[in-house]
Amino acid sequence: MTEPLRLGIAGLGTVGAGVIKIVRQKAALLAARSGRPITISAVSARNRDKDRGVPLKDYAWEDDPVALATRDDVDVFVELMGGSDGPAKAATEAALAAGKHVVTANKAMLAHHGQALAELAEAKGRALRFEAAVAGGIPVIKALTEGLAGNEIQRVMGVMNGTCNYILTRMENGGLSYQEAFDEADGLGYLEADPQLDVGGIDAGHKLSLLAAIAYGTQVAFDAVELEGIGCVSIEDIRQAADMGYKIKLLGVCRMTGRGLEQSMTPCLVPATSPLGQLDGGTNMVVIEGDQVGQIVMRGAGAGEGPTASAVMGDVMDIARGIDISTFGQPASTLVPAQAAKATAPAPYYLRMSLVDKPGALAKIATVLGEKGISINRMRQYRHQDDTAPVLIVTHKTTRSALDDALAALPATGVLSGEPVALRIEDV
Amino acid sequence: MTEPLRLGIAGLGTVGAGVIKIVRQKAALLAARSGRPITISAVSARNRDKDRGVPLKDYAWEDDPVALATRDDVDVFVELMGGSDGPAKAATEAALAAGKHVVTANKAMLAHHGQALAELAEAKGRALRFEAAVAGGIPVIKALTEGLAGNEIQRVMGVMNGTCNYILTRMENGGLSYQEAFDEADGLGYLEADPQLDVGGIDAGHKLSLLAAIAYGTQVAFDAVELEGIGCVSIEDIRQAADMGYKIKLLGVCRMTGRGLEQSMTPCLVPATSPLGQLDGGTNMVVIEGDQVGQIVMRGAGAGEGPTASAVMGDVMDIARGIDISTFGQPASTLVPAQAAKATAPAPYYLRMSLVDKPGALAKIATVLGEKGISINRMRQYRHQDDTAPVLIVTHKTTRSALDDALAALPATGVLSGEPVALRIEDV
Repeated sequence: MTEPLRLGIAGLGTVGAGVIKIVRQKAALLAARSGRPITISAVSARNRDKDRGVPLKDYAWEDDPVALATRDDVDVFVELMGGSDGPAKAATEAALAAGKHVVTANKAMLAHHGQALAELAEAKGRALRFEAAVAGGIPVIKALTEGLAGNEIQRVMGVMNGTCNYILTRMENGGLSYQEAFDEADGLGYLEADPQLDVGGIDAGHKLSLLAAIAYGTQVAFDAVELEGIGCVSIEDIRQAADMGYKIKLLGVCRMTGRGLEQSMTPCLVPATSPLGQLDGGTNMVVIEGDQVGQIVMRGAGAGEGPTASAVMGDVMDIARGIDISTFGQPASTLVPAQAAKATAPAPYYLRMSLVDKPGALAKIATVLGEKGISINRMRQYRHQDDTAPVLIVTHKTTRSALDDALAALPATGVLSGEPVALRIEDV
Repeated sequence: MTEPLRLGIAGLGTVGAGVIKIVRQKAALLAARSGRPITISAVSARNRDKDRGVPLKDYAWEDDPVALATRDDVDVFVELMGGSDGPAKAATEAALAAGKHVVTANKAMLAHHGQALAELAEAKGRALRFEAAVAGGIPVIKALTEGLAGNEIQRVMGVMNGTCNYILTRMENGGLSYQEAFDEADGLGYLEADPQLDVGGIDAGHKLSLLAAIAYGTQVAFDAVELEGIGCVSIEDIRQAADMGYKIKLLGVCRMTGRGLEQSMTPCLVPATSPLGQLDGGTNMVVIEGDQVGQIVMRGAGAGEGPTASAVMGDVMDIARGIDISTFGQPASTLVPAQAAKATAPAPYYLRMSLVDKPGALAKIATVLGEKGISINRMRQYRHQDDTAPVLIVTHKTTRSALDDALAALPATGVLSGEPVALRIEDV
């Protein structure tokens, strides 16, 4: 197999430029490792005239990504345009239909259309690969799909949105408010055009839904991910959590329970001394727990030109080497619809609330929690400020439904000032 | 491809028993993921009558592993006997010669004979895979060979001997001497029959040499690994290092420099707050640095039934899925002999020595270091004990040869009591 593997690249942002640089600068290394030359036949982007820091004159240009995807001289369509629908989806479908392999970094497209696209790839006997879509340069799709294929997966956790982790880290180490940290991240260009993709947890939720499909042999079920962004996290919560030995992370968790597949991407408390707790700044981390292997922790850059291009090239090299593996680790036709369950696994919770300055206020709160079957592990009341007293409670393990019942009953006590904050504590 | 993939397993210790359990208990999962049943045809071990906690009656028994390896009903020979030569090597050669795939956990065999075995596998068009040989359950061979194939690898580091890390951790957190911690590990059954394989760094050095071959496209060069065990590490060094913000680890480092391939497995100081510094107990960690991906950290159990069997099954599943990849990531015939270099990359060093109670003693030491071109970053002298004073020095970056010159010149000062300790500080 010494025929060149010919790429067609659609989308020439930083990642596309990074892939071109690798192919150009490491031709000998790539050929030595894969046994065949990797070449680029054609490229496509919205603006032909933009300077991307890489020479494009050696490659055919296509204004239309669908035309690129179906060219006779393209073996692998590399989709780096982004967007769940539109040109990315149309070109991916066209590429697969034309018998091309597809490598994509597009988590949104796969979260929404992964099942249909995987079925199409399979029908055509072609690869649809997406290492770059999850946790940047960390080869986590490969680890989960291949390296740990002998395991029943018990839980997958991940901090997979570097922007959110940057904001939370800056709130903690810089004493910034959420808005201040958000503005700082925005000024650094860390935020997506629609910031809710980042801070609302949507981008990270997309990634989690892809990991869950591989881990549990289920069809991608992004709509069933319990999503909560980091906008609810205040500097007070970060400080109080730290004081009790925790950090707050936008943490993705998926696991299969007796009631079904749980997927959540929500702010959680994790022990400050755990690998997840120690993850500062824009770095990503994925933790995979298997019944045989125990806990595997993988950490690395979650975004950026080099790391994401590295992941794209990992998939390209697999295809060059003739490695053929189902998109989600087993034939798409055998993936079963996910039976979605939400937060059925009991967990301890962190509660923060403000109580008005009345005798017996704390007792009323404790009584409500007790009535709902929630027992208190730790409680702290701080001195009154402006006629209210901050109270922190860490519960023993309870269900989210019991907690929601309690939260619904608390206002009737008449001692609450404002809304309580409730965050799950994940045992990592 | 729905024909079963039939295993023949030689070596029925904990790992062999673990593999049998996975194949028996997860038949449906393995078949769903690989697209074909995984079965066991035959097994072999030294003692047929030993109870291994798994039923063996369904499998043919072979007293001779070579006979097992060449059976007509075996597609994959799973070599779990261990030992660099003898039956393991004979059976592996026989299996490859007979056109079988081989999956092995045998780092010693590959460190000594990896090149010849890889060439044999290639000549026969069969796979020789060894994920289980390095860092237990961590899928690091796969990450380095496949996931990061688009990178030039700048450095690979690893804490890959859980026993050594256990001993060092117990010295630190239990205040034990090296001998006390060694005896504790021995009592827990953590040590190999020849403890030098562990504490002498040989086992970890084997692993490092395999990673280096993949990272740099070189033939395995275990003999060129700079090896130093942990027997030289004292509780004083651990305490002093901690006091300055470091931990001592048996750290493997390989990198390609202008002078050649450096491979070292030696006790090193690493920052206490780094992922490597925070690795306590028997856990393993491998850090891979690529020019595109930056730093990838992988952490997990480095030994034990489940983790090692998980790695074996990862390789078996690859073979079942038809994934064919060269043993060291590129054809064995293209691997070049390693030009070995030792410690040419400058690094800061930690020095601990005892000085006799004479005026000007410290000045004499500092003068010798200065004459050899070694500048001092930090120095601490402690109060005299028994007529000697402990002195700690952290140097700026220097070469090992300059340091060796200085160490050779120090005794002539007449102010040293005993041998100085010199440990490299690895910038992680």
